[in-house]
Amino acid sequence: MILIGERINGMFKDIREAILNRDPEPIRYWAKRQFERCAAFLDINTGPTVDAKDQPAVMEWLVKIAQETVDLPCCLDSTNPEAIEAGLAVHKGKALINSTTADQWKMDIYLPMAAKYGAAVIGLAMNEKGVPKSAADRAALAMEIVVNADANGIPMEDLYIDPLVLPCNVGQEHGPEVLEALRQIKMLADPPPKTTMGLSNVSQRCADRHLLNRTFLVMSMAAGLDSAIVDLDDDALLDAVAAANILLNKDIYCDSFTKTFRQR
Amino acid sequence: MILIGERINGMFKDIREAILNRDPEPIRYWAKRQFERCAAFLDINTGPTVDAKDQPAVMEWLVKIAQETVDLPCCLDSTNPEAIEAGLAVHKGKALINSTTADQWKMDIYLPMAAKYGAAVIGLAMNEKGVPKSAADRAALAMEIVVNADANGIPMEDLYIDPLVLPCNVGQEHGPEVLEALRQIKMLADPPPKTTMGLSNVSQRCADRHLLNRTFLVMSMAAGLDSAIVDLDDDALLDAVAAANILLNKDIYCDSFTKTFRQR
Repeated sequence: MILIGERINGMFKDIREAILNRDPEPIRYWAKRQFERCAAFLDINTGPTVDAKDQPAVMEWLVKIAQETVDLPCCLDSTNPEAIEAGLAVHKGKALINSTTADQWKMDIYLPMAAKYGAAVIGLAMNEKGVPKSAADRAALAMEIVVNADANGIPMEDLYIDPLVLPCNVGQEHGPEVLEALRQIKMLADPPPKTTMGLSNVSQRCADRHLLNRTFLVMSMAAGLDSAIVDLDDDALLDAVAAANILLNKDIYCDSFTKTFRQR
Repeated sequence: MILIGERINGMFKDIREAILNRDPEPIRYWAKRQFERCAAFLDINTGPTVDAKDQPAVMEWLVKIAQETVDLPCCLDSTNPEAIEAGLAVHKGKALINSTTADQWKMDIYLPMAAKYGAAVIGLAMNEKGVPKSAADRAALAMEIVVNADANGIPMEDLYIDPLVLPCNVGQEHGPEVLEALRQIKMLADPPPKTTMGLSNVSQRCADRHLLNRTFLVMSMAAGLDSAIVDLDDDALLDAVAAANILLNKDIYCDSFTKTFRQR
């Protein structure tokens, strides 16, 4: 399971203030903390309060601080292509672009950019009409991204399709559709694309958020989820992933399987 | 989710002693306790220490005590057909026979018995050769049970197929096969048979049993599990089921969804 740490995001107060004051310490703290808690990538998002014109410089600064602190690739998370490219230009190793949609004009920006920088890329199963209701419509949009990625020479192992989960208190009917979409996406190509999701979205403004998050995560893993953007500070979530890895026969059982998982 | 309480089983020391002393109190305690914790059925098993010749009388006694205490049907759990029939003879409401295998001689005993008493029946996806390794071989045995149940006039809603999960420390490769088998079993007939499993078996002699149990349970629910024989004293398990019901869109979200689930 490829875990992407969600915490370096300007929507969190400490990161927002760190960006405002150009204070690297909170960035370093969360880079190190998430590295120690199984992160394979660090999501980097300037957050909603940074002006569009400043986003490239802030993204560059965040990526540099994070990669000076720990030896991890970043998941460059922005709706601003200039910010993504500024991050790619200074990034060491294989970055993950977060994200393109299935809109042709966006794929025409981000997929050549991924190819140019040798980056992986997240493709959201949505377009300008919004998020589809059914699994089949999500898979259809995923297929458009698969075809365009292939045309840009991006190998399927570098494409992460996100079927897009909605908060279960407002879009409850989407839950089973997302699980079915995960299964269908794995049949779109051989080898198949990877899959990912922004997990915390499933529990936005819900009670018992941690319970909902880890429950949906392990159900999604059983349906073929390879990766997720998650709250790595959630102990019970890491234990649930460790257990799911054992039960899905992806890690070899040992009595200390939860501890072993965290030490990896 | 149809939860079957596992606790009235002679393999537990207090129940074994209650049977030896014909003391109804522990039986009453666990009948009431499991009733209060979401049980839809009470599993009733005389346990391995009762002589075969005494099993019918013990089963009859246990069923009577349980049903005098709470208004719940029983899941009559024995490898002894005479014990099952003794339970059926005194049972009020629709009992659940636990279980037949896919061996023809066993189906020829239990399926007519289920039809005679109007009982539901659990069919294990195994035969005299043991438990199959693959999902497809499990589904093939399930299909034999489906056909035989249908020939005996048992409606699919009264047939519970158990794909048989093994302890993940010794049969780890069975985990994903069981999940796939659950999906395949739901395609064997229209309407499909129900599915069930003896959940605690997945974690026999493992560390972190509760974690493994609830993780496998919610993954199985996402794959189509309708029912399970479980430890209803496990709070985290009940919360996980409540969360999975929300996320699979089987219960309507409310902020008190865990509490609401338990009060049902």
